Amino acid sequence: MTIRVFITGGTFDKSYDEIGGRLHFKDTHIQEMLRLGRCRVPVEVRTLMMIDSLEMTDADRELILQNCRSAVEERIVITHGTDTMTETARVLGEARLPKTIVLTGAMVPYAFGSSDGLFNLGSALSFVQALARGVYVAMNGRCFAWDDVVKNRELGVFESRR
Amino acid sequence: MTIRVFITGGTFDKSYDEIGGRLHFKDTHIQEMLRLGRCRVPVEVRTLMMIDSLEMTDADRELILQNCRSAVEERIVITHGTDTMTETARVLGEARLPKTIVLTGAMVPYAFGSSDGLFNLGSALSFVQALARGVYVAMNGRCFAWDDVVKNRELGVFESRR
Amino acid sequence: MTIRVFITGGTFDKSYDEIGGRLHFKDTHIQEMLRLGRCRVPVEVRTLMMIDSLEMTDADRELILQNCRSAVEERIVITHGTDTMTETARVLGEARLPKTIVLTGAMVPYAFGSSDGLFNLGSALSFVQALARGVYVAMNGRCFAWDDVVKNRELGVFESRR
Amino acid sequence: MTIRVFITGGTFDKSYDEIGGRLHFKDTHIQEMLRLGRCRVPVEVRTLMMIDSLEMTDADRELILQNCRSAVEERIVITHGTDTMTETARVLGEARLPKTIVLTGAMVPYAFGSSDGLFNLGSALSFVQALARGVYVAMNGRCFAWDDVVKNRELGVFESRR
Repeated sequence: MTIRVFITGGTFDKSYDEIGGRLHFKDTHIQEMLRLGRCRVPVEVRTLMMIDSLEMTDADRELILQNCRSAVEERIVITHGTDTMTETARVLGEARLPKTIVLTGAMVPYAFGSSDGLFNLGSALSFVQALARGVYVAMNGRCFAWDDVVKNRELGVFESRR
Repeated sequence: MTIRVFITGGTFDKSYDEIGGRLHFKDTHIQEMLRLGRCRVPVEVRTLMMIDSLEMTDADRELILQNCRSAVEERIVITHGTDTMTETARVLGEARLPKTIVLTGAMVPYAFGSSDGLFNLGSALSFVQALARGVYVAMNGRCFAWDDVVKNRELGVFESRR
Repeated sequence: MTIRVFITGGTFDKSYDEIGGRLHFKDTHIQEMLRLGRCRVPVEVRTLMMIDSLEMTDADRELILQNCRSAVEERIVITHGTDTMTETARVLGEARLPKTIVLTGAMVPYAFGSSDGLFNLGSALSFVQALARGVYVAMNGRCFAWDDVVKNRELGVFESRR
Repeated sequence: MTIRVFITGGTFDKSYDEIGGRLHFKDTHIQEMLRLGRCRVPVEVRTLMMIDSLEMTDADRELILQNCRSAVEERIVITHGTDTMTETARVLGEARLPKTIVLTGAMVPYAFGSSDGLFNLGSALSFVQALARGVYVAMNGRCFAWDDVVKNRELGVFESRR
């Protein structure tokens, strides 16, 4: 069973620009993270975009949906900025594809020593193998159905709507 | 849903002894790892032993089994050395407790920068929430039933017996 | 011989703001770095400001100079943003205090795994012990006199003016 | 001014053997450390041996001495295990070469997240540029002349003999 991984950017993949002195997007860290986790599950990675999720448009979400639809794999992990992760989850969830799709991200860029990224990636790759068809958000050890999750922006955590 | 975590030692928790210049066991790194992963799932941690799994005796395995049996939680993660992880899984599996139990560990100590420990912990805490009753070994993104896993010692990887 | 360390901020001490999703200043990392380096030289740390060196004013530089002048220690390390490090070095150099003063910083925040900060701190604490009175900039293994250093902004490196 | 770096092994360069589950020597980490420190000083690295300094023989020390003698560079850093660093320093010191030689190492392997190695390397490369001819031991921010240093094995620190 091969898992498809789509990269869209987000905090997860922010790098530090030494010359400009600020965070920016360069390359994804996913290959390095899979190597560190010594991941033994077959994974196919494709970068769809490298953007801050606050800048993600309807067209971008449509592109993500089309890629999920046309992927031959039935199990898909999407790395995504946390700010609008639940919005993309909704677009994918309403499409009711016959697939298991898990969105994940990080509160702190992977390039920081203190990142939760590796933990979340291990979590997302596991939930996607074990869960039934549907669209989910997996962050910080928890997993939410797409229609039952909201980001608490003050605390920086994901919560059930109920 | 609270997850019970039992610590038994293994590579996962080896530390570097600065004075003696060798690896040894001191304290578990699990709390630091849960903090790094910003884990939002309620977790109760208990250290049962801190040993190399090559030194684990039948009595030690019996102790682990008794703790799994008497735990009020139905979902349990056990950190364990990789060398005899499948043996402990067998003891637990044959007991057929009405619980979901996931054993995990690391190929490289968490204290090393290059450890797979955080990835594996995120993975184990996810599989334990999503899988049906049974005993499993979760390492490096894969999850095996207790009666279908063997450690390939030359390659240092876990494989299906089939 | 006690070394005085003055903290002024800069890339060195930038942290990641999880809620806001951007770099900011919180606390200095200097104590953690001294602990990691297992520093055995007596050091007295004082935070003068926590700012980006692009925002440093003449009044800020005057404050740094006054603190260098009134310190009882004859050997002083100053952590500083790289963008205007040479300007502060000039202000201190022209004051011709009877002290050895070394400015240092980092191209990448210490909180990033890929930071040069620990290397630079070890370097600055060593140059300050070994060099004669004067004001110096120590970055990335090199040490420049205050009147012979310029930052090459395209390459992000410090160079001799000659 | 090019600095010659001789590698001899020691805690500094110990790696973790995933298959065997123990510390061993593989390759030196020095190039990675110089890259992390964004070192701008010209450095020529040569590995003389990769051993635990407890196993270092008189013949090994003679080899180190001959390499110091025949090197075209006048400034030399030697990475070395801490257990017998002061013995090698004595052999080199008594040879009274017209060079500046600094021995350094680490209390914790560089491959561990908690290593003092990068701090010590930054320190040694700085002392070697700034100090007069002679042989020195630079550890944890301090620098000792070869005939005035002893390792306190209980505390794991280097001290002046006086």
